[in-house]
Amino acid sequence: MSPNTQDEKAREQLIDLAAEFYDQFAGGEIPEMKLPTRTKSNIVFDEDSNVWVYGDRTSTRSANSVRGARKLLKAVYTIDFLAKQLDEDRSSTLRELYYLSESWDNEEAQFSDQDESNQLVEDLEIVSKVTREDFHMRPEESGATLMGPLELREQTRRGEREIHCQKDVGEGGYQIPNNPDTIEFLDHDIDFVLCVETGGMRDRLVENGFDEEYNVLVVHLKGQPARATRRITKRLHDELDLPVVVFTDGDPWSYRIYGSVAYGSIKSAHLSEYLATPEAEYVGIRPQDIVDYDLPTDPLADSDINALESELTDPRFQSEFWKEQIELQLDIGKKAEQQALASRGLDFVTDTYLPERLSDMGVI
Amino acid sequence: MSPNTQDEKAREQLIDLAAEFYDQFAGGEIPEMKLPTRTKSNIVFDEDSNVWVYGDRTSTRSANSVRGARKLLKAVYTIDFLAKQLDEDRSSTLRELYYLSESWDNEEAQFSDQDESNQLVEDLEIVSKVTREDFHMRPEESGATLMGPLELREQTRRGEREIHCQKDVGEGGYQIPNNPDTIEFLDHDIDFVLCVETGGMRDRLVENGFDEEYNVLVVHLKGQPARATRRITKRLHDELDLPVVVFTDGDPWSYRIYGSVAYGSIKSAHLSEYLATPEAEYVGIRPQDIVDYDLPTDPLADSDINALESELTDPRFQSEFWKEQIELQLDIGKKAEQQALASRGLDFVTDTYLPERLSDMGVI
Repeated sequence: MSPNTQDEKAREQLIDLAAEFYDQFAGGEIPEMKLPTRTKSNIVFDEDSNVWVYGDRTSTRSANSVRGARKLLKAVYTIDFLAKQLDEDRSSTLRELYYLSESWDNEEAQFSDQDESNQLVEDLEIVSKVTREDFHMRPEESGATLMGPLELREQTRRGEREIHCQKDVGEGGYQIPNNPDTIEFLDHDIDFVLCVETGGMRDRLVENGFDEEYNVLVVHLKGQPARATRRITKRLHDELDLPVVVFTDGDPWSYRIYGSVAYGSIKSAHLSEYLATPEAEYVGIRPQDIVDYDLPTDPLADSDINALESELTDPRFQSEFWKEQIELQLDIGKKAEQQALASRGLDFVTDTYLPERLSDMGVI
Repeated sequence: MSPNTQDEKAREQLIDLAAEFYDQFAGGEIPEMKLPTRTKSNIVFDEDSNVWVYGDRTSTRSANSVRGARKLLKAVYTIDFLAKQLDEDRSSTLRELYYLSESWDNEEAQFSDQDESNQLVEDLEIVSKVTREDFHMRPEESGATLMGPLELREQTRRGEREIHCQKDVGEGGYQIPNNPDTIEFLDHDIDFVLCVETGGMRDRLVENGFDEEYNVLVVHLKGQPARATRRITKRLHDELDLPVVVFTDGDPWSYRIYGSVAYGSIKSAHLSEYLATPEAEYVGIRPQDIVDYDLPTDPLADSDINALESELTDPRFQSEFWKEQIELQLDIGKKAEQQALASRGLDFVTDTYLPERLSDMGVI
């Protein structure tokens, strides 16, 4: 779908929402907005799309109280702003929206803090089934990069740009734009996509030419990945039919980073089909690697142990693999960073570790 | 200087350092290393270079204790590693160095934590007068970007890349490499360099075409700027003779961001001549702007007040401008973000605020 058709569709779905309030009013009903309950207990696995989505339980925002009525008033003002923004082909950040509300003519419609406006935009995403990117709402920071044998065309406000993510970029790589749906994949020579948690490891792989030797597209996750990074990863998998593997530190916080690529998060389960790549596989660092390769480690802190125990009861980590690895980690009481592989030399990761693991996994 | 000559020079200076220990041994002296004392009280303003540097007070690392001897042993092993790295034209991160030390044959030379290895690399920087970048030590994360009418050539491990920072990049801009001294400026149409703290504001300026309308190179600082970002800013000023202005939030932490661009930091005063751009001017948000433009604000927290008071006694903030603005801010008890300008509409920053401020400052 071309960006403009997408804009028009997003605009219509927003206006429909406002029209619904109008119809409720006109029909003598108290206007309301129904939302799925956004808790761990209302997350279910959808067999068709293979991702975790919200279940059937809902909560209702109704105008039957002053507080509720004010919420819907703010929603209407926000819809008006977003529809105008789409009409003019502009965009803004969540923070700008919050400040901008100070210029609205009705004081009751202004946001009292940014949590409130953020929350409302999420509600509108869920109810309208349009993503924030399609509302043209930008994140504050994005910043992840690609490096590998991929040629793409990005539709910018200044015209089209055709960029090869090895030949046309510096060592820093290609900067993923805030909305990666402006990208079209033109050509590639990629065998698999490798998502990497830390900048230090990303730079190591690029310096060692791992992307060239194995035809890898290296996606830098930069810690917990931004939506743009998760979206482009999913598109690479779905549209180019490429295996995706995730390479992080060996601790419970990094398993969550893998989880957010593969399964999505509870907070954004309404976006799982748009952002999650359930076929993404975990390379490591596994607790088993700590044992097998005798890696330098740090002891687990109490917060690490709690996080691991919470993952044991998380529906998304119920596979044999994760149960075994997490129990092993609790048992040995240790964690290791990806860069700990440097204790075996700077080339160990690209000459030995990754080739061994990826061949065990059947990726190479 | 070509990268290779630079590598050779860095290598020699490191070897000289090790040779000095050797000569001390050979001459029957206890080997030692003299370092400037790195505290606020030993920072002096250098009238020639117009930056803050270390004063005359020094501390000595001597091998006259087991602890001191172990420190020098670690220094020698690290010098050996760095010299080899330069010889092979490779690079590594500070974290890799820490882990790599586990593979060294002498256990006494291995680092016990990463603070120790980080500190040692800084010591070597100071004593050898070679920057970390010239040792080929990479930071963990970099990630800032350029957007504007600049054509450059980056020397990558994969050959040269010629990139125009508007025409050859996507909306995300050109990613600054870890060592920006691999960049050569080829051609430009820049009138001034605008360093911007937040991603949201950077995206606003690019969306509104501010870089095109005013021939601006927009440098995204991403909060406290990385060394690579400060280095390229300084080079743009020095080599292309361009005015540099800094645009941040209006709070004491952001004044420090300006300070790190303009004056350098106490911790890295040995690098001021390499990283600082003392001619950089501060655009805002000034406390005066909060009053003049009636911006949405947050009250100052206790930590903000303490930070402002500490800035009042900081030698780097002793100008009339800063004393006035900081006292005004303590007086009104408020702070404001750059994006608060959106309360006057999304175009206010590019149509009104920046043109007014920059024209007052004589930049446009």
